Amino acid sequence: MSKTIELAQHLEKLHINNMYKSDFYWTWDKTDEELDAIFSVADALRDLRERNKSTRIFDSGLGISIFRDNSTRTRFSFASACNLLGLAVQDLDEKKSQIAHGETVRETANMVSFMADVIGIRDDMFIGEGHKYQKTFMDAVKEGYRDGILEQQPTLVNLQCDVDHPTQCMADMLHIIHHFGGVENLKGKKIAMTWAYSPSYGKPLSVPQGVIGLMTRFGMDVVLAHPEGYGVMPEIETIAQKNAQATGGSYRKVSTMEEAFDGADIVYPKSWAPFAAMEERTKLYQAGDQAGINALEQRLLAQNAQHKDWTCSEAMMRRTRNGSALYLHCLPADITGLSCPEGEVDNSVFDRYLVPLYKQASYKPYIIAAMIMMSKVKDPVGALMSMDSGSKRKIF
Amino acid sequence: MSKTIELAQHLEKLHINNMYKSDFYWTWDKTDEELDAIFSVADALRDLRERNKSTRIFDSGLGISIFRDNSTRTRFSFASACNLLGLAVQDLDEKKSQIAHGETVRETANMVSFMADVIGIRDDMFIGEGHKYQKTFMDAVKEGYRDGILEQQPTLVNLQCDVDHPTQCMADMLHIIHHFGGVENLKGKKIAMTWAYSPSYGKPLSVPQGVIGLMTRFGMDVVLAHPEGYGVMPEIETIAQKNAQATGGSYRKVSTMEEAFDGADIVYPKSWAPFAAMEERTKLYQAGDQAGINALEQRLLAQNAQHKDWTCSEAMMRRTRNGSALYLHCLPADITGLSCPEGEVDNSVFDRYLVPLYKQASYKPYIIAAMIMMSKVKDPVGALMSMDSGSKRKIF
Amino acid sequence: MSKTIELAQHLEKLHINNMYKSDFYWTWDKTDEELDAIFSVADALRDLRERNKSTRIFDSGLGISIFRDNSTRTRFSFASACNLLGLAVQDLDEKKSQIAHGETVRETANMVSFMADVIGIRDDMFIGEGHKYQKTFMDAVKEGYRDGILEQQPTLVNLQCDVDHPTQCMADMLHIIHHFGGVENLKGKKIAMTWAYSPSYGKPLSVPQGVIGLMTRFGMDVVLAHPEGYGVMPEIETIAQKNAQATGGSYRKVSTMEEAFDGADIVYPKSWAPFAAMEERTKLYQAGDQAGINALEQRLLAQNAQHKDWTCSEAMMRRTRNGSALYLHCLPADITGLSCPEGEVDNSVFDRYLVPLYKQASYKPYIIAAMIMMSKVKDPVGALMSMDSGSKRKIF
Repeated sequence: MSKTIELAQHLEKLHINNMYKSDFYWTWDKTDEELDAIFSVADALRDLRERNKSTRIFDSGLGISIFRDNSTRTRFSFASACNLLGLAVQDLDEKKSQIAHGETVRETANMVSFMADVIGIRDDMFIGEGHKYQKTFMDAVKEGYRDGILEQQPTLVNLQCDVDHPTQCMADMLHIIHHFGGVENLKGKKIAMTWAYSPSYGKPLSVPQGVIGLMTRFGMDVVLAHPEGYGVMPEIETIAQKNAQATGGSYRKVSTMEEAFDGADIVYPKSWAPFAAMEERTKLYQAGDQAGINALEQRLLAQNAQHKDWTCSEAMMRRTRNGSALYLHCLPADITGLSCPEGEVDNSVFDRYLVPLYKQASYKPYIIAAMIMMSKVKDPVGALMSMDSGSKRKIF
Repeated sequence: MSKTIELAQHLEKLHINNMYKSDFYWTWDKTDEELDAIFSVADALRDLRERNKSTRIFDSGLGISIFRDNSTRTRFSFASACNLLGLAVQDLDEKKSQIAHGETVRETANMVSFMADVIGIRDDMFIGEGHKYQKTFMDAVKEGYRDGILEQQPTLVNLQCDVDHPTQCMADMLHIIHHFGGVENLKGKKIAMTWAYSPSYGKPLSVPQGVIGLMTRFGMDVVLAHPEGYGVMPEIETIAQKNAQATGGSYRKVSTMEEAFDGADIVYPKSWAPFAAMEERTKLYQAGDQAGINALEQRLLAQNAQHKDWTCSEAMMRRTRNGSALYLHCLPADITGLSCPEGEVDNSVFDRYLVPLYKQASYKPYIIAAMIMMSKVKDPVGALMSMDSGSKRKIF
Repeated sequence: MSKTIELAQHLEKLHINNMYKSDFYWTWDKTDEELDAIFSVADALRDLRERNKSTRIFDSGLGISIFRDNSTRTRFSFASACNLLGLAVQDLDEKKSQIAHGETVRETANMVSFMADVIGIRDDMFIGEGHKYQKTFMDAVKEGYRDGILEQQPTLVNLQCDVDHPTQCMADMLHIIHHFGGVENLKGKKIAMTWAYSPSYGKPLSVPQGVIGLMTRFGMDVVLAHPEGYGVMPEIETIAQKNAQATGGSYRKVSTMEEAFDGADIVYPKSWAPFAAMEERTKLYQAGDQAGINALEQRLLAQNAQHKDWTCSEAMMRRTRNGSALYLHCLPADITGLSCPEGEVDNSVFDRYLVPLYKQASYKPYIIAAMIMMSKVKDPVGALMSMDSGSKRKIF
């Protein structure tokens, strides 16, 4: 029996009917079984791909991508996922469009969705704005379908917002699951999500938030660490607390990187901006206060510079379990001595973990494809079984 | 019997053999039966799409798009239409190309058409230039096919030129036909194509021209209204006159928006630039006279500003039949109090018509797909019948 | 028997097993039979296309394109080739990416290759850099496959580097073969690869290098001519010498355009930059010495200007065999009196050769497709035979 058939049989036992036609905003909107389904389908699609089986669920169709910030990994992951399922990608490049003319989100949403099967949006630049944009967009699309404008209702894959980065964190999690040989081996494992110094400014909070919101659901000991003033959104911390209580894991905050790393099985050191400062920045942008923005940037860079000791050095890594915790990063990283004089991680540490880091990233296209498939296919079990005995992807 | 089969049977009665391998420049090049065929195929493709039938006429192939001006709606409509029929889109982005090096249109046309099934061109910026570019391009492609350079002859869909905007106006017309329950109900309906104030400068004339050139063919009472000095191309007015005489409709010009709106069943208030000024601008550009262009822009903006009362206000709408004419716009609109202080339409009017406006736009991908299909498929009746009983678009 | 079956039977006799899963960097890496296979498959794909046969070897899949310089012809050729075989194209636009953050080539290579079947790279701007980039990229991809990051190993098509331009030169060669009615008619034909004046600066050397490295393998009399100081890479001249000795042709250098053109059957006059100056420029760029670069540019433009007599004039053409040698250019050309006051070729000469020039270019998509097919398909003979009796490309 193939791995895909095994996974399909597992899928059959899960309560996942609500996923059909649903959007994927945040992992905490989804039940444990729904996340399990995403992981299972991602693994099955990878197995089918490796065995040269066609995984098309569409004969034709469109995935619309909207990147309101530059992107390589996520852009290519979305394109790969769409192609894997038989969709072409049409990118909404706001520079080539007429959107600047004061067009509303509702109008844009309808205009680009006429034949869209799925919408992927990345909008992570402003706290309080990214999720709102996605929600407004998808509400417009729902109305458009109801009103007979769209002949079908496309579904959303959140490719990163100001709150969560579910395709990243789900890929990270699938990497962890495989690294430790199964979700059943994660109970009690310590994972350190820590801030790290970077010479740049204003990196999104969606990764640390996504990580504490997701990783607390697997019985792990999740530790968040950051310098004073770099807090994340309080409501996500509440979610992390609840998750931990419900699944027998734990969530706690510590005030030093050392404490977080001590005995950790997994470390995820990464720069992000202080939540409160990002709120302030959003208001300054809305007010068009460029002088205020510049002053804020200088203040934040100065604040950052006080915490250059928050770095994933060799010494720091030695504190982890057997000195060999699994090192994670969403990439690209700021690497001391390679991409900057002082950064998030020592070059020697980063270099030692290159292969697992690239593997971590390699799950993202499959996670996105699984999210799309679960939202578009009513009978995913039957679909996987058909694919397993179906035609070749590379025909000759 | 499905709607598609009914439409295919209707199609069978039309004289449409000349459409195979033909280009679509202007609606007035086409016979009434040919336009009827486009509408019928557009409706059939939408019916098939809604019933999850594959509408691919290509196993592989390319649609080439050339947008010489920014575009969202038309870009996405062309991409959707191509995808619907099984074509991938390759966009000629002149910024990424080497075309600026003094390459001729003939050379570019051949270089991008090696495996092109269809070419979509939008070139509406300069009066006297847009159509010329399309014609030169397609003549080169025809020669290329004749000379054995291209192994097939791609066909053109005019995505907007300086003269006509046939994909827009045909979509508008299909919307009207459906709104009034069939083309047989349009006789005697009054449609007001009117100028409206916008704070911007130099909007194309192709929509008003396309509208009077097309809508006069359905027995309607077509009225054009604009302030003095905002005339459209005289030859298009001649076409409108002839159309009206041939089909039992009428075409006339009035000098106020009020007169146009009085008792109208349909209103299409929209800004455009004066034809004569656009001719002047083309000459200034060709002479490289930037000071002259700036002076012209200032003069035209001042001229515009004298006509702020040409706006689709609530009061203006009350003049229409039962105060509830069908409001049309090609989008994006300049909306008073939303996208600008004073514009083409009151926010409350625009907002009340959002659903019909988006529906109007939703016909464009199907109109484009129908244009492509009629130019590429020798037996469209047989193709529709095959699709009707054919395979699924979404396979699972 | 179809032309495709004939070509497949010819293919069957060649020793080409090493092409499966191999990269295409330079023509001189390939055996004569391997090049023969590329030509044969290119011709077969064109024959199948003309007979409306589907040539898909993929049900889904991705071709990744990386253009580190502007491009029209090659971009569209790569897109056409991918589409012909059933691949979608995903372009790595470095401006839309996060690559500027100091990411390594190894990281980028893995991140964009998760589901890539083929990678096309153009990197021709800096001597000593283009090939190195491609090699580093593909080594990373090989490692990625070995380490389980990529579930398959994509193959490379070199879309132009600092050393060779194999898709261009192979297309040029296929054009020559067809023009002279077969490779057996080329023995003793004289081809003049000559420098020509252009007002621009720093054109790549990959075309002259590629031409002398390839054309010397067909028993032709290959002559390279350029003003003093415009030498190409010495190691490519060595390759040309060896090729000529091995295949009964000849390779020699002459110091005037006249001597090169005298009695030539084929002429390829084209501007390029001096190799030594390009090496200097690479160093200046690496040192970030903008003043040095500007000074170099001025010096090179002045040097160029001394050789305006190196131009493919009517008088020059009269020196060729019967005054009617086959004129080649990779396009776009600098045309005297059309795109510049003084350039590579007289407008009247260029204009007379438009049709053969466009035909020359028209082979490139098929050459690229053949390169991809030979690297991805284990049994190309069987694949061509299946296609020959297979399904239609345009279905209706």
